[in-house]
Amino acid sequence: MNRRISSISIHEPAPPTRRRSSYATSVSSRNPTLNRRLSALSTAEQGDVAPVSAADETVAEELAEIKRYEDFTTIDWVQDAARENQRRKARRQERAGFFERQGRLGWRRKVWEAYDAGQGWIVVTLIGVAIGLNAAFLNIATEWLSDIKLGYCTTAFYLNESFCCWGAEGGCAEWHRWSTFWPLNYLLYIVIAGLLAFCSARLVKSYAPYAAGSGISEIKCIIAGFVMKGFLGFWTLLIKTLAMPLAIASGLSVGKEGPSVHYAVCTGNVISRLFDKYRRNAAKTREVLSACAAAGVAVAFGSPIGGVLFSLEEMSNYFPLKTLWRSYYCCLVATAVLAAMNPFRTGQLVMFTVKYDRSWHFFELPFYVLLGVFGGLYGAFVMKWNLRMQAFRKRYLSAYPILESVILAIATAVLCYPNMFLRIDMTESMEILFLECEGGHDYNKLCDQQNRWRMVFSLFCATILRTFLVIISYGCKVPAGIFVPSMAIGASFGRMVGILVQALHERFPAAAFFAACEPDVTCITPGTYAFLGAGAALSGIMHITISVVVIMFELTGALTYILPTMIVVGVTKGVAERCGKGGVADRMIWFNGFPFLDSKEDHTFGVPVSHTMTANPSAIPAKGLTIKELERVVSETKFQGFPIIEDNDSKILLGYIGRTELRYALDRAKREQMASPTAECFFAPPDGPRTATTPSTAAPTVSFDDVADITGRMSVDFSKFVDPTPLAVHPRLPLETVMELFKKLGPRVILVEHRGRLTGLVTIKDCLKYQFLVEAHENPKDDSVLRAGQERLWVVIRRVAGWVRDHIGRYSGGRFRVGDDGGSPPAAAGGDRRPESVEREQDVELEDRRDGL
Amino acid sequence: MNRRISSISIHEPAPPTRRRSSYATSVSSRNPTLNRRLSALSTAEQGDVAPVSAADETVAEELAEIKRYEDFTTIDWVQDAARENQRRKARRQERAGFFERQGRLGWRRKVWEAYDAGQGWIVVTLIGVAIGLNAAFLNIATEWLSDIKLGYCTTAFYLNESFCCWGAEGGCAEWHRWSTFWPLNYLLYIVIAGLLAFCSARLVKSYAPYAAGSGISEIKCIIAGFVMKGFLGFWTLLIKTLAMPLAIASGLSVGKEGPSVHYAVCTGNVISRLFDKYRRNAAKTREVLSACAAAGVAVAFGSPIGGVLFSLEEMSNYFPLKTLWRSYYCCLVATAVLAAMNPFRTGQLVMFTVKYDRSWHFFELPFYVLLGVFGGLYGAFVMKWNLRMQAFRKRYLSAYPILESVILAIATAVLCYPNMFLRIDMTESMEILFLECEGGHDYNKLCDQQNRWRMVFSLFCATILRTFLVIISYGCKVPAGIFVPSMAIGASFGRMVGILVQALHERFPAAAFFAACEPDVTCITPGTYAFLGAGAALSGIMHITISVVVIMFELTGALTYILPTMIVVGVTKGVAERCGKGGVADRMIWFNGFPFLDSKEDHTFGVPVSHTMTANPSAIPAKGLTIKELERVVSETKFQGFPIIEDNDSKILLGYIGRTELRYALDRAKREQMASPTAECFFAPPDGPRTATTPSTAAPTVSFDDVADITGRMSVDFSKFVDPTPLAVHPRLPLETVMELFKKLGPRVILVEHRGRLTGLVTIKDCLKYQFLVEAHENPKDDSVLRAGQERLWVVIRRVAGWVRDHIGRYSGGRFRVGDDGGSPPAAAGGDRRPESVEREQDVELEDRRDGL
Repeated sequence: MNRRISSISIHEPAPPTRRRSSYATSVSSRNPTLNRRLSALSTAEQGDVAPVSAADETVAEELAEIKRYEDFTTIDWVQDAARENQRRKARRQERAGFFERQGRLGWRRKVWEAYDAGQGWIVVTLIGVAIGLNAAFLNIATEWLSDIKLGYCTTAFYLNESFCCWGAEGGCAEWHRWSTFWPLNYLLYIVIAGLLAFCSARLVKSYAPYAAGSGISEIKCIIAGFVMKGFLGFWTLLIKTLAMPLAIASGLSVGKEGPSVHYAVCTGNVISRLFDKYRRNAAKTREVLSACAAAGVAVAFGSPIGGVLFSLEEMSNYFPLKTLWRSYYCCLVATAVLAAMNPFRTGQLVMFTVKYDRSWHFFELPFYVLLGVFGGLYGAFVMKWNLRMQAFRKRYLSAYPILESVILAIATAVLCYPNMFLRIDMTESMEILFLECEGGHDYNKLCDQQNRWRMVFSLFCATILRTFLVIISYGCKVPAGIFVPSMAIGASFGRMVGILVQALHERFPAAAFFAACEPDVTCITPGTYAFLGAGAALSGIMHITISVVVIMFELTGALTYILPTMIVVGVTKGVAERCGKGGVADRMIWFNGFPFLDSKEDHTFGVPVSHTMTANPSAIPAKGLTIKELERVVSETKFQGFPIIEDNDSKILLGYIGRTELRYALDRAKREQMASPTAECFFAPPDGPRTATTPSTAAPTVSFDDVADITGRMSVDFSKFVDPTPLAVHPRLPLETVMELFKKLGPRVILVEHRGRLTGLVTIKDCLKYQFLVEAHENPKDDSVLRAGQERLWVVIRRVAGWVRDHIGRYSGGRFRVGDDGGSPPAAAGGDRRPESVEREQDVELEDRRDGL
Repeated sequence: MNRRISSISIHEPAPPTRRRSSYATSVSSRNPTLNRRLSALSTAEQGDVAPVSAADETVAEELAEIKRYEDFTTIDWVQDAARENQRRKARRQERAGFFERQGRLGWRRKVWEAYDAGQGWIVVTLIGVAIGLNAAFLNIATEWLSDIKLGYCTTAFYLNESFCCWGAEGGCAEWHRWSTFWPLNYLLYIVIAGLLAFCSARLVKSYAPYAAGSGISEIKCIIAGFVMKGFLGFWTLLIKTLAMPLAIASGLSVGKEGPSVHYAVCTGNVISRLFDKYRRNAAKTREVLSACAAAGVAVAFGSPIGGVLFSLEEMSNYFPLKTLWRSYYCCLVATAVLAAMNPFRTGQLVMFTVKYDRSWHFFELPFYVLLGVFGGLYGAFVMKWNLRMQAFRKRYLSAYPILESVILAIATAVLCYPNMFLRIDMTESMEILFLECEGGHDYNKLCDQQNRWRMVFSLFCATILRTFLVIISYGCKVPAGIFVPSMAIGASFGRMVGILVQALHERFPAAAFFAACEPDVTCITPGTYAFLGAGAALSGIMHITISVVVIMFELTGALTYILPTMIVVGVTKGVAERCGKGGVADRMIWFNGFPFLDSKEDHTFGVPVSHTMTANPSAIPAKGLTIKELERVVSETKFQGFPIIEDNDSKILLGYIGRTELRYALDRAKREQMASPTAECFFAPPDGPRTATTPSTAAPTVSFDDVADITGRMSVDFSKFVDPTPLAVHPRLPLETVMELFKKLGPRVILVEHRGRLTGLVTIKDCLKYQFLVEAHENPKDDSVLRAGQERLWVVIRRVAGWVRDHIGRYSGGRFRVGDDGGSPPAAAGGDRRPESVEREQDVELEDRRDGL
């Protein structure tokens, strides 16, 4: 077949007869080559392809394996998809041949096919079960650890308060407070909080630095195609699972949903790696990871549909329907397992069931709008200050992760204990705030009319304090999410507004404004305001809409309030958009400089791609370079790949070779073919009839002129490692269209070609750099004042630390030293090697990798 | 600026210095040309661009306006987006200039800017309000018309039964049945049903043939970029709104959600056309249409989130987050208006509130799986037979749309009246079936134990009959959806299963299987089975998952049953996928041959794009052709556009010109420039310094050699109509990647280029044709038996019709003639011109338009 095709000379114009008339019958008889290989130039115009060889496949698998472990690169979705298609086709043919040879073994084929087809579902089921079990364990552990701060169960130490007092209302004798003397309780509360935070931070620092923080922004990038080695590994999974309950129980103002997404995605990654299909295909794995992210949210909130929508709205920049369906299934399995485990013994998935009997009134709309505005402002405020805090942390505190967490936990405990809403677990406090006053669940006289102003004050303090704590806590080096704290803040604010509206109504029951209320009946339900406030704050911090609405329902079942929820979230979204773009996860991505093109954004640059491309990139001519020269090119440049051109004068674009492929090909040529350093390398096969050879299987191609001089003059054919069809665009194509190409197709690189000549090369980072430059140009920013302020703050902190150390050292006689990082704060800088790896996560900056293509 | 750039000769190699160093400052000072014009070849490599002129803009607007009304074409998303970007940028600059000149009129600028930015929201708000109001009207009209079949209100004829008997339980004296003699009631029921169907079909046939059917599949194509003139016009909107209540009230087994989506999208189209921004941008309009589709479902079911998800899962092949947010807002406004109108006077959006007090048990899972399997099989069965029915209808019945509808309505009435679940409105019957037995809502002794077997039989009949009726009714020439009928079928089947399970439990209360049930307490809730069955059937027919789950909740508020619902829908989806791909909307798209690339599908062809491209397409050389020759090309070919090449020998690709642009340019040149037919046309600007001219503003370019011979030898510059940067790919690029490009970027055409030379051209239809060929090759199908069967059926129908006509003619003495199409059935064929236009909608087949590019 190859010969037939190659006999068409390259100089012959393409035959005018269209080959399509016969393709319907010949489709199945043609084998595509692996990696879209260009077997002969003359065939390129007609696009015929050569059969796959087993050796080719081995090479491709090896390469895929290598590429999987390249850290801090992005995957090429286009190539990945093409490769998967080839593989599928090859497998189908191979299998057909194998089973036909086996004769009657039809059932074996069927079983194999069923397994092959169902592999995806098996993987997702296993992952779902694992996530569900893990979530159940985490729920139980967190509850117990949280309650241990207040007391213990006398019947069995491993029971938390509600299990210890199962069936009893409002506490029982079996549950013992640590002491009857409140200052001692206070002290124990603080000490245990500090201890828990210490354990959590220590675990993270020693075993899995990547387990710190929420992980959502990194996972967003990973799902978009970024590679971060170890971020989704087994150790991260284990440590995140262990450290998360500790961190939450320590009372830090952190939530469990971010970490929950992270451990779910880790689970998915660890399990899917056990299966062939996913080990070899990075793009397919990302599909599963999207599903895992959905399941993570689903088990954190008991909200399967909310999880799917969260994954759709926030996590995935591209979400095909197949992924939707995978996510749906994964969420279903995970929540079903969680429901079967029944960790809360309520028999319900719904975290806090509320039954709002009263419907809402249209006159409440202004208050709903108020809640929405609060949500938007809250989000903007927290993001702004939290980012500053992160910058401060990165600059000064990265050497003391453990100390920081412990001090934060102690400070949180000191501040929170006196406030009745802050003292208890955030989830619990939300449950209390959501409740209607009817039904006798009156926590601490929250519904008592006499108590109203005290409650308003208390809720106000809770809102302010918690906001402050979230700003300083989110991002510290323990597993930490921001969903639940935000919701708790929103709930306390909302309940406050609700109580005020109720007071207003009771003060002016006859006002025209309240005409919709029936007389002498409770009209305002403050619990619904808390519910709406929680939704608003969540939407404000994450900039998500529809998933918040669904999560709020699935959390509470308050379907009557669907319109108010939508209104509040809508207002929040509007306000939040005014205050700046992107939710906290997006901001963290910009802050960390990950190469992530946000599909949410819409740009109007009005410039062609030639403005941002790398003009005249390092290209490799198709022939003429020796192995030695090539090795120099590879070692001297940092580019991720090289376009292949015909020669340096014409610059006709022939293909593209990735750095990894080139490196691999060079090594292989030297190792297996004993190619001499002066051997000439061919990247495009020469014209005329020839058989496809690979460096691995064929003997070294001896050059035609000098057969004797075997060692000195040889040629090596690298053409099989070349991608002959890289995406190439016109230099005048608008930059926006090129960005769309990156976002929607996900190639690693796009070449720029004019009339067949290579003129440039563009990567996602080139686009991002241009975008940032334009933005910086439009909004010039001067952060020297900020930096000076941070510097002053750091000096103060150091002084305080020094003072504390001195005093503690003096009182304890040197036996007790503050600073668990192996040294006192100022001295520890650079003393430990760990912090660097912790910091590495933060330092994957665009700037640092500017030169690496 | 232009001169500076053009002085770089084309033969000079691209300068090695990268221009990027200065772009940050020069970005804002450069103006892009409209329509990405290539001002000089030498600048192309650097990608610099010339300023926009006002005349250029006029031309672009005129072209956009023309293109909007080209019927049965697809829009070019890439060009549209590029044009919008240019426009936005131009507007921004122009505005800046204008307001600066105006001096202190700052507030005017602000108001203008706010209006401009908020235009999208204003449009969506208006649309939402209109949809909400329309939905409220439709709900009221439908209820009244439905009840009129059974009786009338004595106090006020315009009230339906429930409003007439407001507050009373189980009927009242004010509501009068037509007679006390049941056969007369039966007869009246049949006659009124027939009358209503007649009115509906007559309206559709006479005023808006496009208003027939569901419209979902067409809207899917339109949202994907297809243009169907009039399908979303004002008349369609009006007629759909009027005919829908008539059709539903006639008792035909058709639902209101498909038509609801259609009228919502019409509303969106009609309103958005009033605004500048949308009149000119087809792609932007599609965003709004997606939002409208969501609002249509939202108001049909009172399910705002379900609507958004439906639009996401089913309607839109590409759904950016911006559209999600628009859809969310549109649904919110529409449902809020509907809630404020409160058409049911229940104060609730939720259509049928159910309160399932009991939770489900794990032992019920097998029955849930059974329901899921039923849903999947139901969907497959109905789709298969309905498509056959559609083929039959298209072949034989298209001339008798009104007669067909009337006969169907009468047959439905005859069959349905005797069955208590079929007699009443489908929504009402679902409400009854969903209810728990507790609480005293016992409709017709449904919960009575004595009655059990009679109920099972009745439900079984209802399931079978309704399925048959749906198969023959869906697709008839009245507004008709398939959601609600499917749900009603699922509900009756589910309730049947529920009653059987209940009977089983009562028979063996002590069995180990039922161990989870508490003794002596009702354990099984048949209503929940009905609920789940409805979800399963809906999912089975539409092949949607997550939207069904959300819609089911929002319909009923049964949040406890989230896991069972998800399980049932999951099983249904699995079964449905086994039985064939695509829901009923997708099948209709294939049936009608619309050019729609389904983003849900995943193909493995393993062939390069060169296999399916049009090799050697008609191309226009950049110079040398005269106006006369060009006109011949345009009139003799049917291609939608032509690549521009340097000359016929080199075939170097320079750009692409659409047929519309070329036609427009030729007309304009002749009209405004008096260009002679022998004038030479230039498509690529010549090298060297020149100013950008447009055919509209510049004087005719006189050729240099002969100034005197003005009329005989002139040249016309068409370069501004050429898209200099069409998407071009390598011939070896896998077909799958090209299809991804079409799906995700949405160009109208992709050119195939090898080393700068044009080798082919590929459109969506080329891809689809290849796909169908491969599928036909893999599953060869012979439908001659089917056709023969249909032919026999038609003969029988004709004979029956003839017999009926003869007899009725004889009895009525010729005064009454069957066949309202202006003739008796066999004679009417081709007698009326209307049916052709009705048929046209169905005949937009791929086959028919194969030659048109």
